[in-house]
Amino acid sequence: MGKNYMKLGLFLAGYGHHVASWRHQEVSEKGPMDLEHLVNIAKKAEQGKFDLLFLADSLFVSASSHPNILSRFEPMTLLTVLARETTDIGLASTASTTYEQPFHLARRFSSLDHISHGRAAWNIVTSSINSTAENFNGTRHMEHELRYERADEFVQVANKLWKSWDEGTFRRNKDNGQFIDGEKLHTIDHEGKHFKVRGPLNIERSPQVRPLLIQAGSSPTGTNLASKVADVVFTAQSNKTDAQHFYQKLQDKVIQHDRLPQQVAIMPGLFPVLGETEQDAQENYQTLQDLILPEVGLKILAPYVGEINLSAYELSTPFEDIEFDHGNGVQSRLEVILKDAREHHLTLEQVMKQVAGSRGHHIVIGTPEMVADKMQDWFEDGAADGFNIMPPLLPTQFDLFVEKVVPILQARGLVQTTYAQGTLREKFGLKND
Amino acid sequence: MGKNYMKLGLFLAGYGHHVASWRHQEVSEKGPMDLEHLVNIAKKAEQGKFDLLFLADSLFVSASSHPNILSRFEPMTLLTVLARETTDIGLASTASTTYEQPFHLARRFSSLDHISHGRAAWNIVTSSINSTAENFNGTRHMEHELRYERADEFVQVANKLWKSWDEGTFRRNKDNGQFIDGEKLHTIDHEGKHFKVRGPLNIERSPQVRPLLIQAGSSPTGTNLASKVADVVFTAQSNKTDAQHFYQKLQDKVIQHDRLPQQVAIMPGLFPVLGETEQDAQENYQTLQDLILPEVGLKILAPYVGEINLSAYELSTPFEDIEFDHGNGVQSRLEVILKDAREHHLTLEQVMKQVAGSRGHHIVIGTPEMVADKMQDWFEDGAADGFNIMPPLLPTQFDLFVEKVVPILQARGLVQTTYAQGTLREKFGLKND
Repeated sequence: MGKNYMKLGLFLAGYGHHVASWRHQEVSEKGPMDLEHLVNIAKKAEQGKFDLLFLADSLFVSASSHPNILSRFEPMTLLTVLARETTDIGLASTASTTYEQPFHLARRFSSLDHISHGRAAWNIVTSSINSTAENFNGTRHMEHELRYERADEFVQVANKLWKSWDEGTFRRNKDNGQFIDGEKLHTIDHEGKHFKVRGPLNIERSPQVRPLLIQAGSSPTGTNLASKVADVVFTAQSNKTDAQHFYQKLQDKVIQHDRLPQQVAIMPGLFPVLGETEQDAQENYQTLQDLILPEVGLKILAPYVGEINLSAYELSTPFEDIEFDHGNGVQSRLEVILKDAREHHLTLEQVMKQVAGSRGHHIVIGTPEMVADKMQDWFEDGAADGFNIMPPLLPTQFDLFVEKVVPILQARGLVQTTYAQGTLREKFGLKND
Repeated sequence: MGKNYMKLGLFLAGYGHHVASWRHQEVSEKGPMDLEHLVNIAKKAEQGKFDLLFLADSLFVSASSHPNILSRFEPMTLLTVLARETTDIGLASTASTTYEQPFHLARRFSSLDHISHGRAAWNIVTSSINSTAENFNGTRHMEHELRYERADEFVQVANKLWKSWDEGTFRRNKDNGQFIDGEKLHTIDHEGKHFKVRGPLNIERSPQVRPLLIQAGSSPTGTNLASKVADVVFTAQSNKTDAQHFYQKLQDKVIQHDRLPQQVAIMPGLFPVLGETEQDAQENYQTLQDLILPEVGLKILAPYVGEINLSAYELSTPFEDIEFDHGNGVQSRLEVILKDAREHHLTLEQVMKQVAGSRGHHIVIGTPEMVADKMQDWFEDGAADGFNIMPPLLPTQFDLFVEKVVPILQARGLVQTTYAQGTLREKFGLKND
């Protein structure tokens, strides 16, 4: 991405991103299903001149799903509401290449792009939860590499559909009755391994032609797809060094795909816990941490520690005394946690809450200046082109971010103070095509 | 349906329902893609206390598709916009059981139902255009009976998903951390011939629980499905006698399915061409008829006359002189057209324009009183519970309907003068379930 302005995305979760946010006194009761609450947050993001508003998604829930995802609006309908309530912010929705059809998906994003006057963005995912297949006729989820192979072809088909209408297709000549120039409307006649689609799309060329494309996979296959097709890459990086490595690696891959690094904006998640003073911020964080239920925290910790029943241990057990199975695939992450636990003599409860508190994302607890400093540091040191902001608590912590952190970043010339003209693609320095 | 008020639906087509409407001087240039135009029409419908606003849909277009359908907004995103711009009118979208998945579809309608505070309606179709399959990986379209078998199971699955959340599922107990009562959230574990879906749905119980269900199939299989599951039936009837027969037959089928006739509202399409005087109306119609291009008209006439190349004949040929193949499946319809042509000595051009002008729907050309009289007659004589109004030209002809016809119907106590309280289901005298 061009080194002009740091990009700001808001990763919208109904209650906020802290795992216990819904239990906080300040939070909206209905969170993800409180439409006016979500509209107000979108407007606040626009007040802060945010570039993107981003919705995650999933297609499987159970009684133990997190309150942010158990019940929420379908993203395209929600973004349509937000499109009508905002004027400039990009509107990004997650949608799955594994459980969707290119024709339906391309059509819906085109419709949103028309309604929003060129602000649609698609976060391409392949759906990683195995149980999702059980809601879509399959008992077995498609295997990882095959999912990405399908995703790659899916994006190709969608791109063709979005371009199946040339510019200037319409004539609307009332005198001679010629409605379109038929030469400018094309079938795509795609025949591949996963899809066979004739086209054209049943909606005309949209302001951006194609929505801004986002990818967030961190596996080698995922970053391959990202470097090939994505305009924006979301990533979870818990420290600057890792973020720099990821950034460099991804840029190298982008170049391998004959694209320019400035065509891809790399935006790590950032989990800022704000307070007027550092102590306030720590207290705000502690208030949230105290609301984490042990069973919820242990469930979040589980995937990091492999095949072990943590609930068999007292919460006061020193973490280093737990007998882990070091032979499994998550070893590197566990070693990091263990090293930290030994150094600071942490109990199971403390580790559990620490991991549950940020879930692998970069957490900054402090004053607006401290958060701005950290963002500037990463941005200037080649770790990020911008950030996907994950407020721990909504709306209060996000209000603080917009009112306190953004003005500091603006005063330093790091982020925009007004929106640029044009579509979302144009605002990202890209062409509509 | 209860004999309280006549139901009014607006069948929204961007330019209006006359085949040549887009060429008229009064029409919106971008028609189906002019969002503010569509918003204004929805508001006008609400001013007229219309019960429903209805969107047709299709999933295949080509250069010869009609301007109303060639490029249009995806219905769920469009209805979401209209939901935010209106307060009472029902919002009905067509969606295909042949090319959709129950989980996606149930979720989207639930989301719209939440956003609209209980006003979503689903027009269940199986997609009759063969080429649609070519946009969805198939080269051959599913056969008619099999499509309806799948539709039946699809509706069952969707119904189960909409009911997978009991009332009062949420606890949101911040003190003890219980977010939901897990007993009230159910998997559906559906395993049928066409679908296998685990559930629950990833969005909570909506105000109506299930959207109002509409069906418009006129084949025996179609009316079977309608009488089994539909709350509203749309139908094309060109005269009162046929409409009465259809009405009676459908009510009989409804009773056979152990349902009450008043649970199903039968709403034929009505194509009203209005003018201040009868002569004005005829002139308004003639203006539109004169805009029909021969090639467009002949294409519309073709399916009524079987395997014959009409373009080989001069437009001035007397219709009765054309050599038709009487041995094909469309015979009965052709005999009706021929009889009329002989009686009135019509040319091919005249027949073509007549058929193209109304396309099998009941056409009334006249003053507001004449249109109101006709509606009252059908309504009181057991031919209709209401009408799906198809204005020939938008917005002008619909404005006339709302401003001139509706007040007459209201003065006669035939239609509502204010909206009833509650959800769309409740407004139709049905329960939310």
